Amino acid sequence: MRSVVIHDPTLRDGQHAVRHQLGAVALRRYAEAADAARIPVVEVGHGNGLGASSLQVGQAAVSDDEMLSTVRQALRHSRMGVFMLPGWGTSDDLRRAIGHGADVVRIGVHATETSLAERHLEVLREAGAEAHCVLMMSHMASPDELAEHAAQAVGYGAQAVGIMDSAGHFLPADVTARIGAIAAAVDTPVIFHGHDNLGMAVANSVAAAEAGARIIDGCARGFGAGAGNTQLEVLVPVLERSGFTTGIDLYALLDAADLAERELMPAPPVTASMTIVSGLAGVFSGFKHRVLELSTRAGVDARDVFFELGRRQAIAGQEDLIVDVVAELSARRATT
Amino acid sequence: MRSVVIHDPTLRDGQHAVRHQLGAVALRRYAEAADAARIPVVEVGHGNGLGASSLQVGQAAVSDDEMLSTVRQALRHSRMGVFMLPGWGTSDDLRRAIGHGADVVRIGVHATETSLAERHLEVLREAGAEAHCVLMMSHMASPDELAEHAAQAVGYGAQAVGIMDSAGHFLPADVTARIGAIAAAVDTPVIFHGHDNLGMAVANSVAAAEAGARIIDGCARGFGAGAGNTQLEVLVPVLERSGFTTGIDLYALLDAADLAERELMPAPPVTASMTIVSGLAGVFSGFKHRVLELSTRAGVDARDVFFELGRRQAIAGQEDLIVDVVAELSARRATT
Repeated sequence: MRSVVIHDPTLRDGQHAVRHQLGAVALRRYAEAADAARIPVVEVGHGNGLGASSLQVGQAAVSDDEMLSTVRQALRHSRMGVFMLPGWGTSDDLRRAIGHGADVVRIGVHATETSLAERHLEVLREAGAEAHCVLMMSHMASPDELAEHAAQAVGYGAQAVGIMDSAGHFLPADVTARIGAIAAAVDTPVIFHGHDNLGMAVANSVAAAEAGARIIDGCARGFGAGAGNTQLEVLVPVLERSGFTTGIDLYALLDAADLAERELMPAPPVTASMTIVSGLAGVFSGFKHRVLELSTRAGVDARDVFFELGRRQAIAGQEDLIVDVVAELSARRATT
Repeated sequence: MRSVVIHDPTLRDGQHAVRHQLGAVALRRYAEAADAARIPVVEVGHGNGLGASSLQVGQAAVSDDEMLSTVRQALRHSRMGVFMLPGWGTSDDLRRAIGHGADVVRIGVHATETSLAERHLEVLREAGAEAHCVLMMSHMASPDELAEHAAQAVGYGAQAVGIMDSAGHFLPADVTARIGAIAAAVDTPVIFHGHDNLGMAVANSVAAAEAGARIIDGCARGFGAGAGNTQLEVLVPVLERSGFTTGIDLYALLDAADLAERELMPAPPVTASMTIVSGLAGVFSGFKHRVLELSTRAGVDARDVFFELGRRQAIAGQEDLIVDVVAELSARRATT
């Protein structure tokens, strides 16, 4: 039996589904339940990571300091994880998080911008936390490019490296090719983090494990924006049936998921039509509200906008492209 | 490109999620939307099929006659399908349904009880409807047994034959083995009908298509009991990306799914913990209410009951086994 380390970002990626409003009691209660299930790593934070709480992407109900100290106190067996996007968070945020007892620290960068993680990975190596680097929007890069950037991250000191299917675009064969290329290029554990826009998150995660991934992410009930993340309490037994051990107690895991549904979320994620379209188009689902707003105003089909944004390889931070695409589709419509 | 015929039981299997209470307006509205999307077959009926409306499994809001005439009038392009379980429905029900314009008639039998379909398949052949035979709870039979029973159904006159993953137990490799064995044994199109208890319904359906299935079932938003069926508007684009054509218009399909979410269901299906357990155990999810009721009363863990029922290969109609298992687990608990 091969083993897989489950990494649980319910209390971080799930925040996107509730505008970062998880309170301290909810954080503590879920962390205790995850700990009882022996989930190896429980990640916590603002949806966009350390230092991201702001008017621009949403203010969290609880400060980074309080989130970390609350979850730290709740964990007896599980290690605590945090996430940081360079630009939102700083090296000072990393040191503070480690001071609060963060064991595993992930730096997230766009798939082909690993160099942005260099300084932070050095800080982590010096501070003694386990340093991960995750390549986001990884469907925009080829397996070879991802392998090259993964190796670069390991060169900077990353002790685990991998990919996020941020747009929920992959089918299993896509994952197999990318994880396989990365696993062949680095000696560290390889990470896979899926999203469920095309109903493939669990299948993609199993494909990742079979291609050599050793750290797999999942959230209770799939808690996350849009279609949500890989559903953790489904992923674990399916991995076990597929020949992987996780060390997690199934019944306690199901209890944790039930608690999450009751206490963290208004309702579990639904794979709605616009979520499917953004997954097919390979566009960050966070664009949804702006796409819908501008499309409705201009009288164009939001689905056309998503597919055109996908053709232009739009990424987070390029919200201006939405305005351009809507204007062009609107003009094209007027002339036909 | 290989082609796949999509068969849509939203208005039949989905009934299980609303205690068979879909009204005539809802039936008509969804049938019109499915027709606009060019879904090849739109199946309608009580959740348990023709003739099943009863106090025992639930009385439908609308009679079989009214369901069939309502949907028939709404379809201009799509063919109309019906489903029948021998024992609930009779040959007279089949003839009546064909009189109402049913084009595709499915007889469902337990995986190893094909002989129960013989007489009905003969009736269908005489009446000129397209006759399908589906083997239910197919995880309980080996690939060879299923191939043998599929060939037997074809011998009785079935023009398409296949399997339902009634308990939502399969992983893709299970489906590949079973559909492959059936496709090798018969010359007719092969059917696959999935359930999403383990988050695998879409992946299993793609595996089925790749192993030779040519008729694949899916429901709008996965509408169905428990974790629901294969989500149709996800399945179609994923099949297309995997190299299969369906002839379905994606935007109209997404519109139909949006309409289904608004007008057919209180909320889309959720993969809840007990649903996952029933899928892992390979037990019909319809047992859930009775298992929970008896377990709670006896103070035993309902999950233990499900796993024990799975070991005993309980099937629908064997609800008495629940009583036995709960009593034994309760006694075992008292003596330890």
